[in-house]
Amino acid sequence: MSLDHARAKPHDRLAAALEEDLLAVGALIRERMQSEAAPRIPQVTAHLIEAGGKRLRPMLVLAAARLMGVGGSYHVHLAVAVEFIHTATLLHDDVVDDSKQRRGRPTANLLWDNMSSVLVGDYLFARAFQLMVEPGNLRVLDILANAAATISEGEVLQLVAARDLGTTEETYLKVIRGKTAALFSAATQAGGVIAGAGADAEAALREYGDALGIAFQIVDDLLDIEGTAAIGKNRGDDLREGKLTLPVIRAVAAADGEERAFWTRVIARGQVEDADVERARALMERHGALESTRAEAELWVARAKAALARLPEHPLREMLADLADYVVAREV
Amino acid sequence: MSLDHARAKPHDRLAAALEEDLLAVGALIRERMQSEAAPRIPQVTAHLIEAGGKRLRPMLVLAAARLMGVGGSYHVHLAVAVEFIHTATLLHDDVVDDSKQRRGRPTANLLWDNMSSVLVGDYLFARAFQLMVEPGNLRVLDILANAAATISEGEVLQLVAARDLGTTEETYLKVIRGKTAALFSAATQAGGVIAGAGADAEAALREYGDALGIAFQIVDDLLDIEGTAAIGKNRGDDLREGKLTLPVIRAVAAADGEERAFWTRVIARGQVEDADVERARALMERHGALESTRAEAELWVARAKAALARLPEHPLREMLADLADYVVAREV
Repeated sequence: MSLDHARAKPHDRLAAALEEDLLAVGALIRERMQSEAAPRIPQVTAHLIEAGGKRLRPMLVLAAARLMGVGGSYHVHLAVAVEFIHTATLLHDDVVDDSKQRRGRPTANLLWDNMSSVLVGDYLFARAFQLMVEPGNLRVLDILANAAATISEGEVLQLVAARDLGTTEETYLKVIRGKTAALFSAATQAGGVIAGAGADAEAALREYGDALGIAFQIVDDLLDIEGTAAIGKNRGDDLREGKLTLPVIRAVAAADGEERAFWTRVIARGQVEDADVERARALMERHGALESTRAEAELWVARAKAALARLPEHPLREMLADLADYVVAREV
Repeated sequence: MSLDHARAKPHDRLAAALEEDLLAVGALIRERMQSEAAPRIPQVTAHLIEAGGKRLRPMLVLAAARLMGVGGSYHVHLAVAVEFIHTATLLHDDVVDDSKQRRGRPTANLLWDNMSSVLVGDYLFARAFQLMVEPGNLRVLDILANAAATISEGEVLQLVAARDLGTTEETYLKVIRGKTAALFSAATQAGGVIAGAGADAEAALREYGDALGIAFQIVDDLLDIEGTAAIGKNRGDDLREGKLTLPVIRAVAAADGEERAFWTRVIARGQVEDADVERARALMERHGALESTRAEAELWVARAKAALARLPEHPLREMLADLADYVVAREV
């Protein structure tokens, strides 16, 4: 490892520590995304999966499994299954959101068509379940099937809650548990299970993944408002799509009559002009909604780290703790 | 049973023989399609699943399991899982085909939106895998995961082959194996496995389902050309969508120069006028493509019945044989 440990970002340090496993993950991804019958499948998959995603979810599987002393190689299967489920949800999300860009490249639905994105997503779901059958561990299958159900429930809930100013913080939490935390927690929990972790460690790993995922998504939503333009993402996208993120929910709750009219026009009616993105940010700031949302994210980071403390000491445990800190510190 | 056995249609006789199991299937469908988090999910699901589908695939599971002497109730779980996978593929297909009608009612993508259809389909896939984890039978999970992969491969292949006059009969067979036969054969095979069938019976059940599914889809494609208008389906839909079905492939292979120009305009370029549907039918008839396609379907029916002959004698076995005959005899 030639990286400067103190300065490298936590996910880079994790990647270095898990280098060999990640190479095996990459090889298995390329093997299992093939389809003899339909060559378009690996084309669409490769476009997305090789576009330089951070492989965060596979790393969570691998780190949890290694931390619990995994033997054999089925943690690699599991990491690929989790990445396939993630890729399938991205393909379907981009259809649902009619997205044009992802990871700085045109989306698959734009390059090919919505149909290909829907069907290749379905294929990757199926391949994920095939991969999980191989280790023969029913608990792992159970965890991943539950995660898949929670993910789609969260997405449907988000769809129904969009443009609804009455959306509660409770609903927001359900939405982000579905869209992000469910797969994070399934990754860490199942990583532990495949390594033969006991019930306490399994619960701690699940709670870590859940809290990390929630913190991650809260910050993601914040960055849409106050972040510098990230690659492949435009500031204010959530606002334009009428998504009720936590700072919006809090600003709406504190709004006076005039502000409420603004939110009704922008969120409920979807009439968004360029200047509205800045006005929305200013309103959130006025009511302390950005600050309190950041505090909420930090609360979840603390929960994530508290869960980790119940696990055995290990260099990977420290990296996972640093990762939790980084999730709220990052700027993209 | 008050039905006149000799006259009732085979699937009605199967439904009568499996009445108790089918009631349990209906109850479990209603239980498992719920979502506390997202009430839109059961709304969309109910619209499709209660629209009077024939429950053919669940019946194949139940018949195979009963034929092999199943005990317990996990064959009901499996039947619901298969129906959920089928419903998920219908939801996604209607998005892919931009369909307006299914089973005589407006499609979910029309009543709600494409997003709901994509996400509710994903939810049902996940619920199907949850259901299959419960019996704790890894072979069943393997069979269903493989079927799910083959289904999406077949759908992608159909997408890529559409409007391609060079499509071969081999490709057509792969497409219909994916879109129809894969779930039929998974239903009968897994039904046997859950009943503890031996390897020979399992193989015979798989072959029966595969051959039945292929015959079923060939006839479905024929009915699009020569059938009376079925509820919720318009004659000539496949032609308008540029689908290369078996009689089209055979008529194209036998076409003279002028006919080839016709197929190029209609299929490859997608310029279809109302009179073209009848002209296409006449060209297929001229080259005997309709007749030879029907013979092909009958060949698969014979294969289905030959596979059945390797299974123990049982009233359900005779009903499955009658079902195979009915598949080519039906007019809708």
